[in-house]
Amino acid sequence: MVLATHTKPATTDFGAAVALSCRECGTRYDLGPDFACIECFGPLEVAYEFGPVSREQIEAGPTSVWRYRALLPVPADVADKPNLAPGWTKLVRADRLAAELGLRSLHIKDDSGNPTHSFKDRVVAIAVEAARNFGFHTLSCSSTGNLAGAVTAAAARAGLDACVFIPADLEQAKVVMGSVYGGRLVGIEGTYDEVNRFCSELIGDPLGDKWGFVNVNLRPYYAEGSKTLAYEIAEQLGWRLPEQIVIPIASGSQLTKIDKGFAELIKLGLVEDRPYKVIGAQAAGCAPVATAFRAGHDVIKPVKPDTIAKSLAIGNPADAPYVLDIVRRTGGVVEDVTDDQIVDAIRLLARTEGIFAETAGGVTVGVLTKLAREGRLDPEAETVVLNTGDGLKTLDAVAAHARPSAVIRPSLDAFRATVAE
Amino acid sequence: MVLATHTKPATTDFGAAVALSCRECGTRYDLGPDFACIECFGPLEVAYEFGPVSREQIEAGPTSVWRYRALLPVPADVADKPNLAPGWTKLVRADRLAAELGLRSLHIKDDSGNPTHSFKDRVVAIAVEAARNFGFHTLSCSSTGNLAGAVTAAAARAGLDACVFIPADLEQAKVVMGSVYGGRLVGIEGTYDEVNRFCSELIGDPLGDKWGFVNVNLRPYYAEGSKTLAYEIAEQLGWRLPEQIVIPIASGSQLTKIDKGFAELIKLGLVEDRPYKVIGAQAAGCAPVATAFRAGHDVIKPVKPDTIAKSLAIGNPADAPYVLDIVRRTGGVVEDVTDDQIVDAIRLLARTEGIFAETAGGVTVGVLTKLAREGRLDPEAETVVLNTGDGLKTLDAVAAHARPSAVIRPSLDAFRATVAE
Ligand SMILES: Cc1ncc(COP(=O)(O)O)c(C=O)c1O
Ligand SMILES: Cc1ncc(COP(=O)(O)O)c(C=O)c1O
Ligand SMILES: [Zn+2]
Ligand SMILES: [Zn+2]
Repeated sequence: MVLATHTKPATTDFGAAVALSCRECGTRYDLGPDFACIECFGPLEVAYEFGPVSREQIEAGPTSVWRYRALLPVPADVADKPNLAPGWTKLVRADRLAAELGLRSLHIKDDSGNPTHSFKDRVVAIAVEAARNFGFHTLSCSSTGNLAGAVTAAAARAGLDACVFIPADLEQAKVVMGSVYGGRLVGIEGTYDEVNRFCSELIGDPLGDKWGFVNVNLRPYYAEGSKTLAYEIAEQLGWRLPEQIVIPIASGSQLTKIDKGFAELIKLGLVEDRPYKVIGAQAAGCAPVATAFRAGHDVIKPVKPDTIAKSLAIGNPADAPYVLDIVRRTGGVVEDVTDDQIVDAIRLLARTEGIFAETAGGVTVGVLTKLAREGRLDPEAETVVLNTGDGLKTLDAVAAHARPSAVIRPSLDAFRATVAE
Repeated sequence: MVLATHTKPATTDFGAAVALSCRECGTRYDLGPDFACIECFGPLEVAYEFGPVSREQIEAGPTSVWRYRALLPVPADVADKPNLAPGWTKLVRADRLAAELGLRSLHIKDDSGNPTHSFKDRVVAIAVEAARNFGFHTLSCSSTGNLAGAVTAAAARAGLDACVFIPADLEQAKVVMGSVYGGRLVGIEGTYDEVNRFCSELIGDPLGDKWGFVNVNLRPYYAEGSKTLAYEIAEQLGWRLPEQIVIPIASGSQLTKIDKGFAELIKLGLVEDRPYKVIGAQAAGCAPVATAFRAGHDVIKPVKPDTIAKSLAIGNPADAPYVLDIVRRTGGVVEDVTDDQIVDAIRLLARTEGIFAETAGGVTVGVLTKLAREGRLDPEAETVVLNTGDGLKTLDAVAAHARPSAVIRPSLDAFRATVAE
């Protein structure tokens, strides 16, 4: 099947999605592999005409993101196609962590339970459907690490080719995951922002023709996947919005779409309309949004990242203005934590709740901890904090602290000696 | 609460479990922290008096092992207590792998989706309830790697202390996971079999008094957790038993209990009684059961393990006689694969299905592949193969094969050069 890139194939089925719409000027476009407005260069997002959607209908669906297929740009039979079926991860009631922080009600949304152990499986699952719709045979992306594994795994399951791009200095686990599924993994000598710029050039080049870059030319579809975090959290709380939610920021897409998801639930009458505060979390070594927030600015100044939270190391986040807007509108904050605080937070979460988070989870739990200890969080409010990745992918962050307490011969005397110490 | 070790506390609640019963001579004992028969030294297992259990009742339960709580030695309110709620992992329809192997119907039961990314979360969850029932405040185990992480994570969530024992030469990921949750991790200079012997001594010593060793003095309860794999597979197939199932063997407990689980489902009328073949899988570097099977022996000769499948490296497996019995009774086989075949199988599964297995999954998929290619598997039979662990825990097995295909500067010319190669 050969297609002009900007023509919809006859079989296109995007469910209730009806158009792409410019976030800045509202201009509408046909559903295609486009991401920027021709009029104003604003980002495009998916617009829907939802029919009625009930809680019962959702609850009767599969235990994956596909229970929300009526709210996503995917065909009705999406669950029957080969895909990783991510989502429906645990919302863990974190009473022991709450007690340490003096909070009344705290839950961890633990997305390390996804197939490749990060929230990226959600966004990729939607992008794969778009790629199929547009007849793309190769899936691609620029990645800070987790996305590379999510894309190559999803491509393997779907029977698509993959070629993904990462900064060359990533953690071993992310490099292995980006290549073990059989696609091509290309290391780029540079920062994520340079990798991303390279991918934008590649799209315009014959080399990258007919490629679906999940976070570039498929970005409007891809980004919708993060709404499922909002849907799941609300459903798992018993169809109720949390009062405070802590979300990590790399490009800012996830935070923006969780807010969109909450808004849709209210509009569809699936939850009661009550105020919620959105709190953004960054690593101090890459905190352009936190810096702009504190300064009261509407736009950010790009930075060169230097942090152990490599998955969040985007120095020039595309969705920063929308993040700042949402956080201010909801009465939240954007805060950052140092690398040491990230490590402490990973260990705190592991020790209190038995959840081993990657550095991105250390960032959110670290910000939660910081705000709680400084009295800047409402301790009575129902609070949710996201863990979006897995500790197994960033072992080095805690390796110095996570060692055997002793190495001994297999004898009671030897053990007795370690206990006596 | 101070308890005599062998007295049930007043609040003891083991659900439908009524006794421990000797697998060899049938002698019955009260439900206590006991594991060997006083009469004949045979292993004890949990005996039940099940009430009626319906499919509907199970389907209305939580999406975790607790949907089967009526079939486990746990209280009815178990799901409300702080625990990791493992299970209800994906049964993945593996059409692309099936096509490569010439099989009609193949599913992967992917237990890497559990909270600490191995099937061990299932067995530990049951052991934690037993520990609570017996008033133990410290959870312990001898581990080939995965169990250490599962025990320390579960203890953290439950608010119990933990002290776990591993061979000192394990993979970094397993060492980090065994210590990050805040319990004590002790490395033992020796094989798993030596670690295990050490733990048996420790139980008799005042040092280990009031400790629940999940796979020693809590073993009868612990082992029941593996039955949930059988229940889930049958339910996920639409309340039907598979015709062939490939299961890894370390101690052999899992294989034995999956067979017990299938038998219970038949007895309770939850599935139709149809024949199934149980196929055991070992690494050639630690294959005492495969060797005995081939030789037609009923007992194994212990070996000193030497394989990359460290999680299966038990040279003297406790349940070997029962495994041999089950495999022969069902018309299955026990087969082994070399380290190279394990690596090839990990890569095959990743490339075809987007599932990244640990070496134990390489063993089962390797055995499946070997049997299929040698024409020793029924290609028409509905087949299930277990992946019991996660590739992120055994990165070194594939690291040499899973590297960037190129590392380049961020320029189209540099990329073009790699494509031309
Ligand atoms: C683990 C993890 N969490 C959070 C994020 C943030 O995503 P976004 O770019 O949508 O802000 C990323 C992005 O790579 C990530 O890998
Ligand atoms: C990943 C994995 N699979 C399978 C097994 C086998 O378990 P069993 O001892 O019940 O045979 C183990 C045991 O440690 C394991 O870690
Ligand atoms: Zn516009
Ligand atoms: Zn006996």
